[in-house]
Amino acid sequence: MEKKILAAHGAGGKFSADLLHETILPELGNEILNELHDGAKIGNLAFTTDSYVVRPIFFRGGNIGKIAVCGTVNDLAMTGAVPKYLSAGVILEEGFPIDDLKKIVHSVKLAADEAGVKIVTGDTKVVGKGQADGIFINTAGIGEIIEGVNISPKSVKAGMKILISGFVGDHAAAILSARHGLELPENIKSDCAPLAGMIREILEVEPKISMLRDPTRGGVAAVLNEIAAAANVGILIDENKIPVRPEVRGVCDILGFDVLELANEGKCIAIVPPESAEKILETMRKNVYGENAEIIGEVTENSPGKVGLKTEIGTIRIVDMPLGNLVPRIC
Amino acid sequence: MEKKILAAHGAGGKFSADLLHETILPELGNEILNELHDGAKIGNLAFTTDSYVVRPIFFRGGNIGKIAVCGTVNDLAMTGAVPKYLSAGVILEEGFPIDDLKKIVHSVKLAADEAGVKIVTGDTKVVGKGQADGIFINTAGIGEIIEGVNISPKSVKAGMKILISGFVGDHAAAILSARHGLELPENIKSDCAPLAGMIREILEVEPKISMLRDPTRGGVAAVLNEIAAAANVGILIDENKIPVRPEVRGVCDILGFDVLELANEGKCIAIVPPESAEKILETMRKNVYGENAEIIGEVTENSPGKVGLKTEIGTIRIVDMPLGNLVPRIC
Repeated sequence: MEKKILAAHGAGGKFSADLLHETILPELGNEILNELHDGAKIGNLAFTTDSYVVRPIFFRGGNIGKIAVCGTVNDLAMTGAVPKYLSAGVILEEGFPIDDLKKIVHSVKLAADEAGVKIVTGDTKVVGKGQADGIFINTAGIGEIIEGVNISPKSVKAGMKILISGFVGDHAAAILSARHGLELPENIKSDCAPLAGMIREILEVEPKISMLRDPTRGGVAAVLNEIAAAANVGILIDENKIPVRPEVRGVCDILGFDVLELANEGKCIAIVPPESAEKILETMRKNVYGENAEIIGEVTENSPGKVGLKTEIGTIRIVDMPLGNLVPRIC
Repeated sequence: MEKKILAAHGAGGKFSADLLHETILPELGNEILNELHDGAKIGNLAFTTDSYVVRPIFFRGGNIGKIAVCGTVNDLAMTGAVPKYLSAGVILEEGFPIDDLKKIVHSVKLAADEAGVKIVTGDTKVVGKGQADGIFINTAGIGEIIEGVNISPKSVKAGMKILISGFVGDHAAAILSARHGLELPENIKSDCAPLAGMIREILEVEPKISMLRDPTRGGVAAVLNEIAAAANVGILIDENKIPVRPEVRGVCDILGFDVLELANEGKCIAIVPPESAEKILETMRKNVYGENAEIIGEVTENSPGKVGLKTEIGTIRIVDMPLGNLVPRIC
């Protein structure tokens, strides 16, 4: 039977990984691409790209333009870089309202200004009615890697602490509630935000941070599984420590999602030397995007490649790599 | 009435320019973006992006993967840079055959190898059935600007010579004949090719080349009009000198196109000091992608901002900026 692309291939979990390892890397693999970090490191430059297909286009807390800037800025920041320049490639469906495009471009401007990046090159394509879904935006970004910083799963060692910069699942909850017509309180909105400033602050406090990742598609579960596999270490996190808004937990209960698998667009996971964990936590909490940061667990020698969750009742369950397509077109 | 995106907004002609100047630049404009070159210049780096939506996905002489590499490589080369690194962002429609994806990825590999670039970072998104049209690919690229080279419309002066690196209109003719079921001889195929090698060779012969552009969407007509406007000079080209294959001229006659408005994917227009024109021509012709190069005209003091064509019967007609959407989804 002819194999076809499934929604799950775009979900950031196991199917995405299989597509990458079976179809893309055998042809295109090279020492830079094979690192599979959020951004490529080329000397002191970081380079990254993402396409944004989020639906709805406008949602509480942002829109596709804001996310197209923040997502790429954050990928650069997670590479230990100061984001500098973005490209923007827009694919528009014939009939898309120009007023909506203007709102999106304005959001791009605001997010770029906040993140301190310039859009320096771009491209617009138009496809016929029914050949796309309103608007897709690709951004690629260039950043300068901060001197002395070396973000790499290879430096992750047992005993290191795992931090998250705030509440988990807000972005997905905002998108899901918009799609399902759930009415959430005003404070539940996408966390979409540029984190480059906060990342710079914590790297000033501790340049030896081992890993930084933003838990977007596939959520905390996917990111921690990827790190555990790449570094060949175990990871143990504590359910009691993971910040989740009660309303977001409610959305998860109603719709049957695991909050650890939900996408975030303004959160960062940091794996840091144990001796600087408290100081990094403090620094995160001083930043508007890290007020609710927590130390959620640590790296272990046991169970290499596995992620364990100490549940509220004290048992440990394995957190698997998300398998299917939890929330299509989340970003 | 609500303004909507039209196919013409993506055609690279007047509507595209209006969208850019009315909607994008007022928000996002900065000293780098405002140059509106094929690639942004950032110090000695060139940075560019394009999204590829060509239909059919596979065509004689190439496919969307080959074009996604060549197009971006060429944009970097036209900035006077040696292309180095590409990103690739792929948007797939659910149900797209994985075997087709493999063929496309293989073409990406071959084109990247020929052009001497590495794909160093990427992203895959999947949208639902009917929410895209098979596959869209965005590539962004980074290149190193060759020392001493300064490609800029500001340096274009009256008296300079205009070269084209070969036959005009092949790519569009291949795409059009595939869509319209015209049977063309085997030698009529897309000219899709990476030009970075040839560009490096001519820049070695003459680093003072003023302008390089690849006449893709909107063709020779759009590129020359953009240069005439940006440099505030006149441009006069000679119809007798413009290389066009008879079969391509035939396709134009049958379908009612002006060959000067048709897209090319492996051609370059160069505006060069008159004293080095012959030597550059000779160098182009030694390269496999420049065998049929010609000097097609010159820059004039008269009629600043206008492009004139000396016709085969000796009259001069104005070559306007293409207005509408000549061939949608040509690249």
